[in-house]
Amino acid sequence: MREEKDYLGKVEIEDDKLYGISSYRAHKLFPETGEKFDERFIWAYFMIKKAAATLNKELGYLDSNIADAIISTCDEWKTLKDHIIVDPLSGGAGTSVNMNINEVIANRASQLLNKEIGYVKPIEHVNLHQSTNDTFVTAGKIAIIVRLRELIDQIIKLQEIIQAKEKEFYRIRKVGRTQLMDGPPIMLGQEFGAWADALARDRWRLNKVEERIRNVNIGGTAIGTGIGAPKNYVLKIVNVLREICNVKIAKADNLIDATQNMDVFSEIHGLLKALSVNLYKISNDIRLLSSGPNTSIGELILPKVQIGSSIMPGKNNPVVPEYVMQISLVVFSHDSMINHASALGNLELNQFSPLIVHYTLKSINLLKNACYSLSNYIENIKANEERCRENLEKSISNLTPLINIFGYNEVSQAVKESNYDVDKAIKLLSEKFSISVEDIKKKINPDNLTKLGF
Amino acid sequence: MREEKDYLGKVEIEDDKLYGISSYRAHKLFPETGEKFDERFIWAYFMIKKAAATLNKELGYLDSNIADAIISTCDEWKTLKDHIIVDPLSGGAGTSVNMNINEVIANRASQLLNKEIGYVKPIEHVNLHQSTNDTFVTAGKIAIIVRLRELIDQIIKLQEIIQAKEKEFYRIRKVGRTQLMDGPPIMLGQEFGAWADALARDRWRLNKVEERIRNVNIGGTAIGTGIGAPKNYVLKIVNVLREICNVKIAKADNLIDATQNMDVFSEIHGLLKALSVNLYKISNDIRLLSSGPNTSIGELILPKVQIGSSIMPGKNNPVVPEYVMQISLVVFSHDSMINHASALGNLELNQFSPLIVHYTLKSINLLKNACYSLSNYIENIKANEERCRENLEKSISNLTPLINIFGYNEVSQAVKESNYDVDKAIKLLSEKFSISVEDIKKKINPDNLTKLGF
Amino acid sequence: MREEKDYLGKVEIEDDKLYGISSYRAHKLFPETGEKFDERFIWAYFMIKKAAATLNKELGYLDSNIADAIISTCDEWKTLKDHIIVDPLSGGAGTSVNMNINEVIANRASQLLNKEIGYVKPIEHVNLHQSTNDTFVTAGKIAIIVRLRELIDQIIKLQEIIQAKEKEFYRIRKVGRTQLMDGPPIMLGQEFGAWADALARDRWRLNKVEERIRNVNIGGTAIGTGIGAPKNYVLKIVNVLREICNVKIAKADNLIDATQNMDVFSEIHGLLKALSVNLYKISNDIRLLSSGPNTSIGELILPKVQIGSSIMPGKNNPVVPEYVMQISLVVFSHDSMINHASALGNLELNQFSPLIVHYTLKSINLLKNACYSLSNYIENIKANEERCRENLEKSISNLTPLINIFGYNEVSQAVKESNYDVDKAIKLLSEKFSISVEDIKKKINPDNLTKLGF
Amino acid sequence: MREEKDYLGKVEIEDDKLYGISSYRAHKLFPETGEKFDERFIWAYFMIKKAAATLNKELGYLDSNIADAIISTCDEWKTLKDHIIVDPLSGGAGTSVNMNINEVIANRASQLLNKEIGYVKPIEHVNLHQSTNDTFVTAGKIAIIVRLRELIDQIIKLQEIIQAKEKEFYRIRKVGRTQLMDGPPIMLGQEFGAWADALARDRWRLNKVEERIRNVNIGGTAIGTGIGAPKNYVLKIVNVLREICNVKIAKADNLIDATQNMDVFSEIHGLLKALSVNLYKISNDIRLLSSGPNTSIGELILPKVQIGSSIMPGKNNPVVPEYVMQISLVVFSHDSMINHASALGNLELNQFSPLIVHYTLKSINLLKNACYSLSNYIENIKANEERCRENLEKSISNLTPLINIFGYNEVSQAVKESNYDVDKAIKLLSEKFSISVEDIKKKINPDNLTKLGF
Repeated sequence: MREEKDYLGKVEIEDDKLYGISSYRAHKLFPETGEKFDERFIWAYFMIKKAAATLNKELGYLDSNIADAIISTCDEWKTLKDHIIVDPLSGGAGTSVNMNINEVIANRASQLLNKEIGYVKPIEHVNLHQSTNDTFVTAGKIAIIVRLRELIDQIIKLQEIIQAKEKEFYRIRKVGRTQLMDGPPIMLGQEFGAWADALARDRWRLNKVEERIRNVNIGGTAIGTGIGAPKNYVLKIVNVLREICNVKIAKADNLIDATQNMDVFSEIHGLLKALSVNLYKISNDIRLLSSGPNTSIGELILPKVQIGSSIMPGKNNPVVPEYVMQISLVVFSHDSMINHASALGNLELNQFSPLIVHYTLKSINLLKNACYSLSNYIENIKANEERCRENLEKSISNLTPLINIFGYNEVSQAVKESNYDVDKAIKLLSEKFSISVEDIKKKINPDNLTKLGF
Repeated sequence: MREEKDYLGKVEIEDDKLYGISSYRAHKLFPETGEKFDERFIWAYFMIKKAAATLNKELGYLDSNIADAIISTCDEWKTLKDHIIVDPLSGGAGTSVNMNINEVIANRASQLLNKEIGYVKPIEHVNLHQSTNDTFVTAGKIAIIVRLRELIDQIIKLQEIIQAKEKEFYRIRKVGRTQLMDGPPIMLGQEFGAWADALARDRWRLNKVEERIRNVNIGGTAIGTGIGAPKNYVLKIVNVLREICNVKIAKADNLIDATQNMDVFSEIHGLLKALSVNLYKISNDIRLLSSGPNTSIGELILPKVQIGSSIMPGKNNPVVPEYVMQISLVVFSHDSMINHASALGNLELNQFSPLIVHYTLKSINLLKNACYSLSNYIENIKANEERCRENLEKSISNLTPLINIFGYNEVSQAVKESNYDVDKAIKLLSEKFSISVEDIKKKINPDNLTKLGF
Repeated sequence: MREEKDYLGKVEIEDDKLYGISSYRAHKLFPETGEKFDERFIWAYFMIKKAAATLNKELGYLDSNIADAIISTCDEWKTLKDHIIVDPLSGGAGTSVNMNINEVIANRASQLLNKEIGYVKPIEHVNLHQSTNDTFVTAGKIAIIVRLRELIDQIIKLQEIIQAKEKEFYRIRKVGRTQLMDGPPIMLGQEFGAWADALARDRWRLNKVEERIRNVNIGGTAIGTGIGAPKNYVLKIVNVLREICNVKIAKADNLIDATQNMDVFSEIHGLLKALSVNLYKISNDIRLLSSGPNTSIGELILPKVQIGSSIMPGKNNPVVPEYVMQISLVVFSHDSMINHASALGNLELNQFSPLIVHYTLKSINLLKNACYSLSNYIENIKANEERCRENLEKSISNLTPLINIFGYNEVSQAVKESNYDVDKAIKLLSEKFSISVEDIKKKINPDNLTKLGF
Repeated sequence: MREEKDYLGKVEIEDDKLYGISSYRAHKLFPETGEKFDERFIWAYFMIKKAAATLNKELGYLDSNIADAIISTCDEWKTLKDHIIVDPLSGGAGTSVNMNINEVIANRASQLLNKEIGYVKPIEHVNLHQSTNDTFVTAGKIAIIVRLRELIDQIIKLQEIIQAKEKEFYRIRKVGRTQLMDGPPIMLGQEFGAWADALARDRWRLNKVEERIRNVNIGGTAIGTGIGAPKNYVLKIVNVLREICNVKIAKADNLIDATQNMDVFSEIHGLLKALSVNLYKISNDIRLLSSGPNTSIGELILPKVQIGSSIMPGKNNPVVPEYVMQISLVVFSHDSMINHASALGNLELNQFSPLIVHYTLKSINLLKNACYSLSNYIENIKANEERCRENLEKSISNLTPLINIFGYNEVSQAVKESNYDVDKAIKLLSEKFSISVEDIKKKINPDNLTKLGF
């Protein structure tokens, strides 16, 4: 056990723990929520510390030995992250995690220098010329950029698999449905094509948004005025950090604005929810098209991936679409949370930035999972061609082109009289208007009805 | 045109308008949102003014003639409400509408007394011993209680109509479905029964909650301490108001609490969203059960209520369920809004009480519409018995009881080998275990499977 | 009274009403929600009918006289809109409003041609080669583009007024605040500058999004395959419509996708919520900075715009910021509603498109109001320079630069011992480290602390 | 490694793992979301298995030795829970976790019997007469009841601590505030009292709701009809389970309804959000009352619990209120998620029950943390009596009672002319109405203004 103290008093910490008194206090103060920091966020935070030490050394603000020890320590982030004990939802706008990282780095650097714990100082050395308020949001944005790229890769994969199915199912004609009711014919491939094109928008949108996240407030310190940091540091820190992280960040034009306004997170998450909209729709459509399979639509055959029921033998449920839909619902709820939290910032800082950054990253990671899982699933979906054909013959909406010949009311009347039987309805029209059944059927040949115009 | 002035300056008002300078200013300040006050809320506010005048007269705080004129005016609320020109979402925690009502009453009362506009005073006479902060929330609660009762009546009607269908469809055996997949048999009447029982909970919950809304802060004036109001007034005003409104309100035990804390609205609306949950589920189930009708489930026959499509002849869409589902989505969004607004009050007052009261009433009224419209619709729903029977025969889940005889894996294997064909699966099992098909079929007679136990 | 009938039966309609049987049925079916169609949406819908008639005439699908009468009728949209009686939240994915418009145009066109009602037909003439499913969403997108431009104008105005204040308050030094606690100094102008820069992002974002809304599905008819419409019509209709509306729309590459997927609405509204985030934050900051005015921050002086209280004399409340904050909360709730509704579409159509389009337009209009109202308000805000100066002298965070000289713990200790008294803390440090008070004060001269670096 | 197979194929599982092939497949299928099952939920699920084995043994459906081994295994739940590897958000309505538990119990029971893995069977023995669909929701309800009681204990603690402060601060007179503006006087104790009374409602509400959660669908198996379970089992299982869990559950009157309708979860969570409303409001009020402390309200003195800033020395931020407010925002978002998920169930089952149960439990646990953390914090809050006194003297709203003497406009005019200076305003009124300053001051003695009436 070692004793540490701050201006509030003393605490005892186990010898093998690298965190210090601030981390210890925060851990007690904020009971665990079960949430975990995204590893990329921790990485980004360590890289900020590395960048600051590098620049402070270069500019002569920090002793070379200490700076080098800090820099080496930062490269050990992967093992050191286990010493981050504070909760992601801690109050204090991120101060607790910043101090936790400061303390772990300082103590580990002291070890590397063969000095006593306390030799390298968390605030005066590791946090030199920084504030929680500029480092926290900057770390968040860097991590988001990295994670977004991973997400985009998964979207691409999903889109490609759906496009392969679009081709595979291109020639399967089937009934279309609006409001769950039988509608005009469509190709099964066209249905997959519509999903793929929706995902194309997601790719594009998420790619584009990177340029808006890129502007960071590092160097602005507490409120964006750079208080406590020298001018040459403030001007150069982004460049150093950019190189270390290999992420194209840039100094925000207005550091004060970038410190306090979180609308960019609301914007980013607004695109994540748009992706969720598409994932939910696609998954739900798969559920509908495969439903039954015997007593409902049953036009798609789901892959068998697990036992579907602990009681009903042979049941095969759309479990992956359900997983994806649940994740979409979670992302929708994060969206609302992030909106409100972004709006609720006060004056020079948003006190809820921990929540905003955490749940943005969480949404990205969940969506990555969802795309991955759904890709594998869709790859193994098959068409029930026979069912598609049977259903198509039964759809009343095949008669749509006839309204240009007989008028809407006449065709509707025939449908009603025939009690929704396609053949009977055609026969009724044939008799009433003295046109042969064959001639009528030519007008509604499904082969033509799925191409634009006729 | 007449000129009015306050301590901020002068404005001109048309002669036939009964509102005054405060209303005029508010109308300019807060552009119209398209929202309208619930008529019951305006009524309740007039009744508060009537109660205050009645009591102030009785206690000698208000000249009898003026009091009587105010009281008579309040009974004209139905015509006077057209002079309420301020927007329901005006800022100022309701001050604008309180002043609008004060001014209209004062000016109309002056007319009744054959005096000039300005003789009866909005603040000193009509608003005597009141604040916006106690009258606004009290008016809101009274209106909510009245509207809730109307809603409950509609829920009862809907429940009864569904129960009638439960009986009508009691003997129609059909396939049950879980996760949109064919499941064990169920009676169509049981499906309607489950909906009816869900609505029974809504009735009960909304009935019960009245006792929580009932506690009002009238008499507490600005912050619940009753500042500016004499003790005998504070103690008696609820009784007078209760009699005038014929709504069982009671003085809140802690007027300070009742003035600032809005959790009760969050609680009430939490029950409205529970009702929305059930209405959405019921409506969506109707959509599913009637879907097709030819190429999907098609077990329910929807009433024909309008032309379903402007292009597809004979199409009959589930338009009323869609209307109800949209209303449910709107109510869900109001719920989230009211939660946040309730939480965001500061210190002695919730500045967002106009939003909270308005959207609570709006949700109630929308749900009333939804229940009414859905009742008429469900009344005319018919069963497609033939389809129910056909579907039932095709459901693989009928085999569920066999797992107790052959084991889960064996039955699943048979289902898989038969490619989801019930008869083939039975035959396979019959051969493998040398049990006659007839004996197997006895075990899974659907007549038994919808009763508890076997 | 005239009698109309469809294949469901007959109804009676008053002679002076231009709507027909479908409108009448819809009006009965869907009780009024209190919501009203945006006028621009109705305009856009009439323009679609005009474009279709124009093109159908040109291509020889529609009798010239009838087409001309329809075209003339569409230009009367402003008076005809009073005959739109169906509710914006009607079920049926917009069929009711499409039919209402079809009927009004048909009947009015018959009048123009001096023919009996029924001569021009709602479906066969006015709706020729269209479906609700392509016209409704297209009308929605056109209206949104027009309304967004109006909104952007209001954002520009608001931004300019805030920028003018930024200049006006440029030299007023004051205390910054993080987590509501005294922080380092900042210029009052910088605070306004941060708000203005946030709004600059909103302008940019909303400008850019237009290119995503622009792709419309007109010509795709029921499900995007163009069923019931001839090829030459399908290919040209967007061009005709673009010219008539003077809005830069384009044919969506994939009409099937554009008919069923609503993620674009989720994306647009995601930007509206980002604007709401900024409006809420700005308004709340104004509330905080003007709070008191005597017993809280009181650094801004609010314009006097109405009587603040019906009981507390002289009270001046932040009523416009409160109005704006309420509108932001409403927009947040619309956002969640639109997300879910967009996700909940099924297969070839989103059955909740009426809700999606209506609430998107409503959010835009509400935000326009909010920006307008806030602009006028901020224009009249004044600074309380004396209070800014007094507060600045009292802020402990002025001592921040001293941590680079004495270390964090020493300065914190001095703050604690001095009980948060700035002068006492400096004196303590001066004594302990034998540095003159003057020398210390030079290091923390607020004149330097608001510039980047030192 | 051991090999396991099901009707889909074979997999290899490490020897020391007690889960089986279904768990293994589910683990692959649903990538980890980072969410963890609540321990109480796992406990409840094991207790259901214990109850089923107990009853099945008693009724002769299960071999005694096997039953006893299962029962013993269930009592080892605490160590066995580490073998639960499936994700809480897995698709399949809970099938994966049910199967995971079935497999772990079966395999461990085989060990206890010194038999090979596979001897005790997950479905035929452990899951006998059960379905995921009745066990999952029942386990959820049992866990919720247990957790709710723990939450209520924390609410009680928080309420008591606030009540202690109410007493401690009873005699500290201070300014009240509405809309962040100076209002009439209030006692600091009264402010704490209003918070305590709000929490009293939460206690009451959450206590009462237990009777609604209590009705469980165990015995209903797949869809509430009890398919696959014998009648004597169905009738007795709740009683056995009640005794084992020591939680007052009861058989739902309508098992079909209880299986498919989730409105009760929406109702419960609606009360959790009402608690969040109060926690947010209390925390935010603490932030406001302690704000500054030098340049804002500063009437409360926050406990020093950690270093407030990594850069600003001596800063003490309201970190625990911020933590609590973040948790409230999270709970609000869960609320919206659970609403939608509850509404989105289809027909005989809600496919999103995993999400509903998981996030309900998560909200409860988060709120428990929030209450705990806030209790400890409030206990150490102190009043700044001097600041309370100073502020009180400066509040213009002290003049409220004068409107009954001089009229509203006269007092407002005096406030305006005095530029919000209380003493000057009194002097002006004194001169204008020839009443001595002393007489006026008597009317507005703050000693009287915080009591009801005067």
